[in-house]
Amino acid sequence: MGGTYRAHGDELLTPAEDAQTALLLEAGTGKPGNVGPERDFDDTTFHEFLVGAVGARRGFDAAAEGASVGEVFLESVRGASAHDGGNTQFGALLLLAPLVVAAGRGSVEDAPAVAEGTTPEDAGRFYEAFDHVDVHVGDTGYEYDVRDPEAREKVVEDGVTLYEVMEESASRDGIADEWTDGFARTFHAGSRLVGRPGGTREAVRATYVDLLGEEPDSLVAERCGSEKAREVTRLARELPPDELDERLGDEGINPGTTADIVAGAVFVALRRGWRI
Amino acid sequence: MGGTYRAHGDELLTPAEDAQTALLLEAGTGKPGNVGPERDFDDTTFHEFLVGAVGARRGFDAAAEGASVGEVFLESVRGASAHDGGNTQFGALLLLAPLVVAAGRGSVEDAPAVAEGTTPEDAGRFYEAFDHVDVHVGDTGYEYDVRDPEAREKVVEDGVTLYEVMEESASRDGIADEWTDGFARTFHAGSRLVGRPGGTREAVRATYVDLLGEEPDSLVAERCGSEKAREVTRLARELPPDELDERLGDEGINPGTTADIVAGAVFVALRRGWRI
Repeated sequence: MGGTYRAHGDELLTPAEDAQTALLLEAGTGKPGNVGPERDFDDTTFHEFLVGAVGARRGFDAAAEGASVGEVFLESVRGASAHDGGNTQFGALLLLAPLVVAAGRGSVEDAPAVAEGTTPEDAGRFYEAFDHVDVHVGDTGYEYDVRDPEAREKVVEDGVTLYEVMEESASRDGIADEWTDGFARTFHAGSRLVGRPGGTREAVRATYVDLLGEEPDSLVAERCGSEKAREVTRLARELPPDELDERLGDEGINPGTTADIVAGAVFVALRRGWRI
Repeated sequence: MGGTYRAHGDELLTPAEDAQTALLLEAGTGKPGNVGPERDFDDTTFHEFLVGAVGARRGFDAAAEGASVGEVFLESVRGASAHDGGNTQFGALLLLAPLVVAAGRGSVEDAPAVAEGTTPEDAGRFYEAFDHVDVHVGDTGYEYDVRDPEAREKVVEDGVTLYEVMEESASRDGIADEWTDGFARTFHAGSRLVGRPGGTREAVRATYVDLLGEEPDSLVAERCGSEKAREVTRLARELPPDELDERLGDEGINPGTTADIVAGAVFVALRRGWRI
């Protein structure tokens, strides 16, 4: 396995192992509104998230062997589709791909440069990933529509990089926004994780609630409208976590983008030496 | 990755991936008395079990490359020690090692022959694994005491196989008993998993309770005495799972060997095509 090693218990974990750990700690911590250890959705269960984290490892292992961001993303999405539960970790994998590639090359802190350095081939792989998972995509009017099977060739022919694709959707999608904003929220949340008192479970949950209270969740905005997304942000600041969880559960609101950012933040924290 | 592939959602999972999935589904299902999604012990947390499953993958990957049962066990135990929580999956890994090696060679059903075919070198690796984890071991009077640092060389010199070591401890340890009894309970529980109605969460939990009601748990017997272990068996048959969980939790009783057998059973079920 390539990449730098980090001490942890008796042993040392690689970037690929830390990325898988990040998916598992995110999924394995009950968080208001999300699928979690004690909450299955009708179409996606907690166990499917666990299997998704197993399959996604293929992409992380590819990163250790020098694969590009687009290849890492595609392989991880393909692997994560090894269950019947639909889209479990698409956004988290889009966020983790540049982070794990940067960590493998030397430091997770270089993820912004890795994102900016992506190529049209990376963009092609990104479009190909939509073959392997059902992701809801609305009509954006973008020239390279992910629903167009020819878009994957067109981006390559036209020399459009994955970073440029992310720039185009940054206003609508919280993960694309991270890509084009130096992963600011991810890195900041990672810093806060390291410093939190209590166990890792409480730290992950509190970091999620903080993120949710800071910015409207883009998955909630897409599914329920931007007004509802702003209301959820306000509720996250005002309600105790248990009440927030009950409220979101009752209304069937899943702040999935915020959960994805938590996965990225856990990875950053692990690479910086956070101990489980 | 080596070994046979199995259809699962869009994708196919390898024996190594299924073994990791087995650890995660076992840990990720709340079961009476065990560490689980909603229960940490003072010395071991749920998140540490997740990290253990990440690290254990090293042994499973080694199996795909042709490693022996002893090497697979040692590598998985070393990897699983990549957290601060002590022994999380030692017994489950001892059970999974011959199962995953058999699956990689062609069929999980051949695990009994794989166990019988282990060598003195496998026994040496088994003894070496005790360097990487705190496992409580009482005074057994056995000539090759795991607490003796020279035992690992002595078993090799004397030509004692890992199977023979298991035979010696089968009367005290439920996993060694599986090794020397053709993995009968593991295979049988795997069969029952496949046929259960409801979701995978309910299936895993019910399989655990059934196993616990059938035979005294050897970890409970070692820590609390055989009378208490028999009482737990009776309680598992009589109490509703929630009451059983509360009772075991209050008394601090952890039927860990039964949980280990559940992990093996999930692996068997997955290799036989059980869908998550």
